[in-house]
Amino acid sequence: MYRLTALVTLLALAFYFFTCINVSRSRTKTGVKVPAMSGHPDFERAFRIQANTLEWMPVFLPSLWLSAIYIGDAIAAGIGAVWIIGRIVYFIGYSRAAAKRGPGFAIQALAAIALWVGALGAVLLRLV
Amino acid sequence: MYRLTALVTLLALAFYFFTCINVSRSRTKTGVKVPAMSGHPDFERAFRIQANTLEWMPVFLPSLWLSAIYIGDAIAAGIGAVWIIGRIVYFIGYSRAAAKRGPGFAIQALAAIALWVGALGAVLLRLV
Amino acid sequence: MYRLTALVTLLALAFYFFTCINVSRSRTKTGVKVPAMSGHPDFERAFRIQANTLEWMPVFLPSLWLSAIYIGDAIAAGIGAVWIIGRIVYFIGYSRAAAKRGPGFAIQALAAIALWVGALGAVLLRLV
Repeated sequence: MYRLTALVTLLALAFYFFTCINVSRSRTKTGVKVPAMSGHPDFERAFRIQANTLEWMPVFLPSLWLSAIYIGDAIAAGIGAVWIIGRIVYFIGYSRAAAKRGPGFAIQALAAIALWVGALGAVLLRLV
Repeated sequence: MYRLTALVTLLALAFYFFTCINVSRSRTKTGVKVPAMSGHPDFERAFRIQANTLEWMPVFLPSLWLSAIYIGDAIAAGIGAVWIIGRIVYFIGYSRAAAKRGPGFAIQALAAIALWVGALGAVLLRLV
Repeated sequence: MYRLTALVTLLALAFYFFTCINVSRSRTKTGVKVPAMSGHPDFERAFRIQANTLEWMPVFLPSLWLSAIYIGDAIAAGIGAVWIIGRIVYFIGYSRAAAKRGPGFAIQALAAIALWVGALGAVLLRLV
C-alpha cells in the first residue's frame, strides 16, 4: 500500500536532511558559530534554503499523503517527485544568489498546490 | 475514512500557507529583503505568526490524526476546527500588536492540548 | 494498530512541547521580548534547542511511521524511544553550553537515520 508515495516521502526527507547538513557545512566555511543564525550572507542563504524547505514540509507531506489516499499512489508519488526536483533547482539557484531562487521555488510551489487542490477535490467529492 | 479530519487538515494547511504569503507581502511593505529575517517590527511580527504556526504543526497534526484514528473522525475534526479559529484570532491580534496575541494563542493551545490528551487517553486505554 | 508507535509519537510531541515552553520561560529570565529571537546567549540556546527539535520532526515522524507500517510497531517504537532519550540528553547538554550539545545530538541522529534506512529498505524490498 502506498509504496511509491512512501518512497517519494523518504527521498524528500533525504533531500531535506541534506539541506540541514549544508547549514552545518556553511557554518564551518563562513565562521558563523552556534547558536547565531546570521552574520554572513552565504550562511544566511544556506539557512534560508533549509528553513524554507522545512516551512513547506507541513504543506507538502500531508497534501502528498491525502492525495495518495483519496486519489491514488502513482499520481501522488509522481507529483511528489516534481516537488523534489523543484526543491533541488531551488537549492542550486538560491545557493548562488537570492535572486536566482525563483524558478525552483515556482516548480515546488505548483507541485505542492496541485497535491493540495487534488486532495481537497477528492475529499469534497466523497463528502457530498 | 476520516473525511472530516482530512478536510480540516487541508483547511489548516491553507491557513498556514496564507501566513507564509503574508510574510512575503510584509517583506514588500517593510523593505526587509531576503535572506534577512529581521529589521522592521511589522515584518518580525508577520514572520513570528508564520513561524509560531509552523512550530505548532508537529503538535497539532499528529495529535489531530491520532485522535481521529483512536477516538473518532467527527470529534477530532471538530476540535481541529477550533484550532483553526484560534489561529485566525491569533493572526488578527498579533498582526496589530505583540500584546494582542494572547487570546488566539490560548484558544489554539487548548484545542491542540485537548487533541493530545484525548489521543493519549485513547491509546493508553487500548494498551492496558 | 500501531499503539506503541502512537504512544512514542505522543511522548515525542510532549517533549517538543516542553522545549517550546522552555523558550517562553527563557524570555522571562533573559528579558528578550517578542518578536525578537536574539539578544541573550541563554535565550538563543533555548531557542535553538526548540528550533533544532522542530527541524528534525519532519525527518523523525515520517520515518518512524513508515518503519511502523513497513517493518513493525514494536521495532519502530523502540528506536523512537531512543530518539526521545537522545533529545533529552541534547536538551540538558545544550542548555548548559553550546559545546555540550554533541552526544545527545548524535544519539537522536543515529536513531532517526536508523528509522529512515529501515523504512527505505522495507519499502524497496516490497517494490522489487
